Order: sequence, then structure tokens, then C-alpha cells
Amino acid sequence: MTTRIVTLTTDFGLNDSYVAEMKAAILGICPVAVIVDVTHGVERFSVHAGAFMLASAAPYFPGNSVHVGVVDPGVGTQRRPIIVESERGCFVGPDNGLLILAAEAQGIKRVYEIATRRLMLPHVSSTFHGRDVFAPAAAHILNGVALEEFGPQITNFVRPSFTKVSRDKNSLSGEILHTDNFGNIITNVHVRDITGFAGSLIQVQLPHGTFDTKIRNTYGDAKPEEAIALVGSHNFLEVAVNQGNAAERFHAKTGDKITLSVV
Amino acid sequence: MTTRIVTLTTDFGLNDSYVAEMKAAILGICPVAVIVDVTHGVERFSVHAGAFMLASAAPYFPGNSVHVGVVDPGVGTQRRPIIVESERGCFVGPDNGLLILAAEAQGIKRVYEIATRRLMLPHVSSTFHGRDVFAPAAAHILNGVALEEFGPQITNFVRPSFTKVSRDKNSLSGEILHTDNFGNIITNVHVRDITGFAGSLIQVQLPHGTFDTKIRNTYGDAKPEEAIALVGSHNFLEVAVNQGNAAERFHAKTGDKITLSVV
Amino acid sequence: MTTRIVTLTTDFGLNDSYVAEMKAAILGICPVAVIVDVTHGVERFSVHAGAFMLASAAPYFPGNSVHVGVVDPGVGTQRRPIIVESERGCFVGPDNGLLILAAEAQGIKRVYEIATRRLMLPHVSSTFHGRDVFAPAAAHILNGVALEEFGPQITNFVRPSFTKVSRDKNSLSGEILHTDNFGNIITNVHVRDITGFAGSLIQVQLPHGTFDTKIRNTYGDAKPEEAIALVGSHNFLEVAVNQGNAAERFHAKTGDKITLSVV
Repeated sequence: MTTRIVTLTTDFGLNDSYVAEMKAAILGICPVAVIVDVTHGVERFSVHAGAFMLASAAPYFPGNSVHVGVVDPGVGTQRRPIIVESERGCFVGPDNGLLILAAEAQGIKRVYEIATRRLMLPHVSSTFHGRDVFAPAAAHILNGVALEEFGPQITNFVRPSFTKVSRDKNSLSGEILHTDNFGNIITNVHVRDITGFAGSLIQVQLPHGTFDTKIRNTYGDAKPEEAIALVGSHNFLEVAVNQGNAAERFHAKTGDKITLSVV
Repeated sequence: MTTRIVTLTTDFGLNDSYVAEMKAAILGICPVAVIVDVTHGVERFSVHAGAFMLASAAPYFPGNSVHVGVVDPGVGTQRRPIIVESERGCFVGPDNGLLILAAEAQGIKRVYEIATRRLMLPHVSSTFHGRDVFAPAAAHILNGVALEEFGPQITNFVRPSFTKVSRDKNSLSGEILHTDNFGNIITNVHVRDITGFAGSLIQVQLPHGTFDTKIRNTYGDAKPEEAIALVGSHNFLEVAVNQGNAAERFHAKTGDKITLSVV
Repeated sequence: MTTRIVTLTTDFGLNDSYVAEMKAAILGICPVAVIVDVTHGVERFSVHAGAFMLASAAPYFPGNSVHVGVVDPGVGTQRRPIIVESERGCFVGPDNGLLILAAEAQGIKRVYEIATRRLMLPHVSSTFHGRDVFAPAAAHILNGVALEEFGPQITNFVRPSFTKVSRDKNSLSGEILHTDNFGNIITNVHVRDITGFAGSLIQVQLPHGTFDTKIRNTYGDAKPEEAIALVGSHNFLEVAVNQGNAAERFHAKTGDKITLSVV
């Protein structure tokens, strides 16, 4: 018993026909697929930001949904196309870490390389695996093709640093995934990572600044220009400045380390 | 006998995963829902512009469609989530006037507060009722849940000024809803409000300018730089300047009053 | 036996309700339609660019898909609404050449004018045939209405210059369709037009520059700032400058002639 849902997360934008070509490939193989765009507005080639978008959206979809992610600066090189089977669904895309943040949150069961030629489009271009490899794979999964048929199981898939938070007795370190249009700094620290910090005064360390705060759920009673740490609606910790721009204040950029310590 | 159509009108943009999370919530509850985006490009927090978009699109959808609108500056405050039942369908969103322009055009039957906790997502965030309250409500309506089950019927819902035009013997006053990318000034005066003015010479008064015109259906024989009043394809009256920018000429802004009088 | 797929390619953008109104019209007539956006980001009124988008996407859709294109600067004039029946599907839109590039690639069988009033929406506006004429026609085609019912077969439909490449013994001339965000110059020369040139050294002539190259499939071993001709993932020939901007270097614009000659 499966859903018919395929989601798409890419950096293709909406002004070209690329997204439509992926949808065409899916519907040609699985006419009953229900295709949902997560976003096609990921910053070009930003695997970090794409991973964040996918990890934000995936938890809300029904079990057995298939999530395709294409932020793929290495297309045409030797990077492998993969399928990650999680406890709640499947993730399809390049082996560059894009899928792992979302998949680990669901629990990774097995990872397969996509190698079976007949499960791709007849012509596979060197530049557009989204259409020629990933979209067809997702559609075949919906059709019930067993994951073993796509290729060998692998264990040496890419696990980028941003899929991990490291813990000490009283502290926790993560990484900046994204700074949004409002200057909010979004990290890879998930709400489940910080349950122990509830109510405590925390020191937040960024490469270019440090402040003390409690972790909040809303801007609530923050003063104007006050820096705060809060859990966004996507369930990741973010650093914000009330009525201001946190990314500018802290000169923060994707990949920077963030450390939280109980004061 | 119902349709399976849910429409979405928001100010979320397409670069985040918010819209996808709403769709996920809908499909998790009603897997056969057909979801149609009206637009997610409403100016941030502009209830006027969102109401205009919803009122433009809703008439073209089949009867029994469910329309979700989320332009919600008051999320997390005491503003109520509501369902407006019209003669042709349902509107779901915040009680801030967003839904009323479109719903009144169809004839409002009853309005309900959404209060029943089990018809929301298990976790209701304080910042994202679109996903946690409105999307689930729409999906449950498609599934046939009776509107009384969502909460008490209310009559004191918000009716903003832009849902009304006031009439005199020879004049009519409305409000500016939106100025578009071309500088056209779009008002809340519907084509049905001005049937009596057909063929007459009309004086159009705006806060920063006045001109005489007949109400037209196209730019037709307007001279370059001539100000005209015409009914747009969305059936609302707009003020335009042929080959020019009406919003700039008249220093017009959302909420400004417009009066039409027979000369 | 038909698909239920309708694709939409327009220059309407996503910030208005126009696209939703077209979808509403389709779903009102054919509730089981599966609607796929190709793009709504075609440059305003650029029939060339719209034709390119449609011709890029259409080949990937299943047979019997119905493709609606609306880039329609002549709406409200005497230009005819048409249906182009190809060997693989149908194209619906204005008779201004928009549909012909994509349809000729599939093989044009017959072209019909849309004239039957009852197969349009009850009210046909003078400004929005996308919603009032084209969308309903597409939905009726999905419902199985015979093409002859829409109106008379015509043969004098518009075949714009950009739908043709002209050939000489050792050369081939086409036209620039589009220059993309990266400055790549996309032409109407299809991969099938240049099979005879494979491996040969080719002189590429543009109005403001000439260079010699082999036709490539990727940027591969091109030197920085080198001008090359390659086949893009959409199967049309494009001129690019490795790590540079070809449109700027060659002062290229839509409609310019391009000639390829064996050196």
C-alpha cells in the first residue's frame, strides 16, 4: 500500500521548461502520480539550502511519499545517482548529501545506487539527470518496482557535515544551512536535538559573535534589535534579530559553525 | 456531490517550503484532493491584494470548490480561523476580511469558527495556521465533514471596508484594492455595481485627481496618456492610463477612496 | 485511448490569478484533467521564447497530451484561435506561430480554427482567450470532442520564419529564439538538423561575429572565454561562451540569423 505522491525540490527556477520535463517523465511512467513542488527556488547549486528545504517539507507528507531532490553541481561527473530508503518513504537524487538531512530525520534504512539502464529514460543526457534518471526512478518506485532492481546497495554514500550535530555534556555544535530573505540564520540543529536545553539560559556562539538567550518558540517579548534563538515552523533552530537582520549582524554564511552551551 | 478542488491563495512566495507543507497536510487527509494554486505572490501581509486575487479567481472554479486564503498578519494573536460557506463553495482562512470580498460575491450563507482541535494537525504551531489549521480544515471539508463540526457559527466576523461599495442616487464610492505592475489601479467596484452607468459620462474622483470618462471594456480608442476607467478581465473596475502609469499619475495607493458620479 | 494531460505555457507570470482562472476553466469542463505548468515566465509577448519553451517540453510528454500556449499580443484582434493536431498530440492557442515549432517537430496532421461558440466559456472576454477559449478547448479535447466540431480545417495558418531552417549543400541557416539568463544564445536549429555536421569543423556566423568550432555536447574541454556551439538539453543548438556571456559578446538578439557552414 503506497501513496502516489512525488515531491520535487530543485534549483531550476520556474522560467525554463526543466521542471515540466521532469513532470512529463514521471507521468509518462506513472500516469496516476500526484506531483507536488516543494520549491524550485533553491539557490543555484546550494546543496545546503536544498537539504534544508527538503528536510523542512518531507515530515508533513504522508508515509511512502517519494521525494526527488535535484541540486546537482556534479551532474556529468562520477557522482552516483542514489535512492535512500527511510522508515517513512524514499528520497531520490544525487549522492552529494542533498537527501541525507531529510532522510536521517526519518531514519535511513538502506541506500541504493541507481544503475539499471532500463529504469532511466531511453536517452540519458550528461547534464540533466533530474529528467533522465531521477524522475523516472521516482515514477518506477510509485509503480512498485523493488528498490533492489535499481542497482546495488551501497553504504559509502556522502554524509556531509551539515547532517550532523556534535554533542558535549553541556553543549552542542551544528552548522548554518541557510540565511533567508529576512536575514534569519537557519541551522541544522533540529528541535529534537535541543529538548534538554528547554528553559535554560544558553550561550550561542557564531564565528563573528556571541550572545546569551533562552530558546524561544516565537519572537514574543523580544526587544527590538535583540538577538534570539528560536525554533522555526520548519523545526530547525534559527538565530534572528527582532526587527533586524541577524545574518548581517553576525556576518553569518552557509557552512559556518554554531555552538550552543548551557551558561 | 462535491468537487475535489482546493485552491490556495497566499503571500508565502515560492522560494520556501511553506506552500508544499500546506499541500502535504491536505493530501495526508484527503488523498484525492486536486490542489490549484491561485497565487502565492500576494504582497506580504496585504489583505486587500489577497482579497482581490481570491475574488478574481473564485468565480471561475466549479461549484463546491474549497478556497483557502492565507494572508495572515495576525497569526498567533486572538484573530479567529474561520470557514465561510457561500452559495457556491467554501472559503477557509483567517477572520481578517481576506475571504469576504470573494464570498460576498457568491452570497454568504453561514460563517463558522474553526475550533475543533481534532480537525487540525496534531501539533498546531503559533506561526503557521495555513498548514496546521486551514489546510486540514479544507481537506476535511472535501472529505464531507459537516461544517458544524468545525466549531460554532458566528456572525461578528470581520467585514472590512473594501468589501463594500456605498451608493448615492447618482454616485458610487469604493476603495482601491491593488495597483498592479503596469500601474493600473484596481478597485473593489464590481462590474455588477456599475451596470447603471453604462454609456454615461462619469466623473472619477481619486484623492489626488479627477477625470471624466465613459466606462469602457478595452483600451480601444483611448488616446495615449488618456486616463480611462474600464472593467478588467477580473470583473473589477480599474483606472488606467493608456500607455502610461495610472498609479503614479494619481499618487494612488491601496485603501484610497474612489468615487464615480454621473456628470 | 487518451491521456488526461494538459500543459500550460504562458507569459502571465505567477503573481496574478490568470493561470488559476485557466485551470479553473479546464477543471470545470474536464474534472479528471492533469494540468502541468511548462512555464508562465515566458518574456511578455515574446512568441519566439514561448515557442522555444513549448518545443523544449512537449517531446517529453506522453502521446495524446494537449498543450496550451498563450503568448498572445494579438488577443482581441482578428488573429484566429487554433488547434494544431500533430502525430503525437494537440496544441491549442493563438494563430501567431507560437505552437508551430513544437507541432512541426511532432509532424503536423491538421489545423483547425476554433469557432464553435458552445465550446468556449459562456462569456468570452476580448482580452483573455487563454481562459475563455483555449482552456475550454483543451478540456473538451480531453473529453473526447472531435476536432472537427471546433471549427473549419484551415491551411493558411501562420508559419513564422523561426519554425524553419534553410539548407544549402554545406551550410544551414536558422534564427535566434532566445537568450537565456546565462547569456547563452538558443537557436531554432534542432539536433536532427545537424546530424551531418557531427565531427566537422564548422564556421558559425552571427550578425555581429563569426567563429569556428566543432559542435559539442558539453562544455567539456572548452577554454575559458572560448565561444562554442553545443546542443543543449532541450535539443536545440546554442552558442555559448565558456565562463562568459555569449549574448553580450555577439550583441545577439531574438530573431537574428545564424548560419553554420562546413569549413
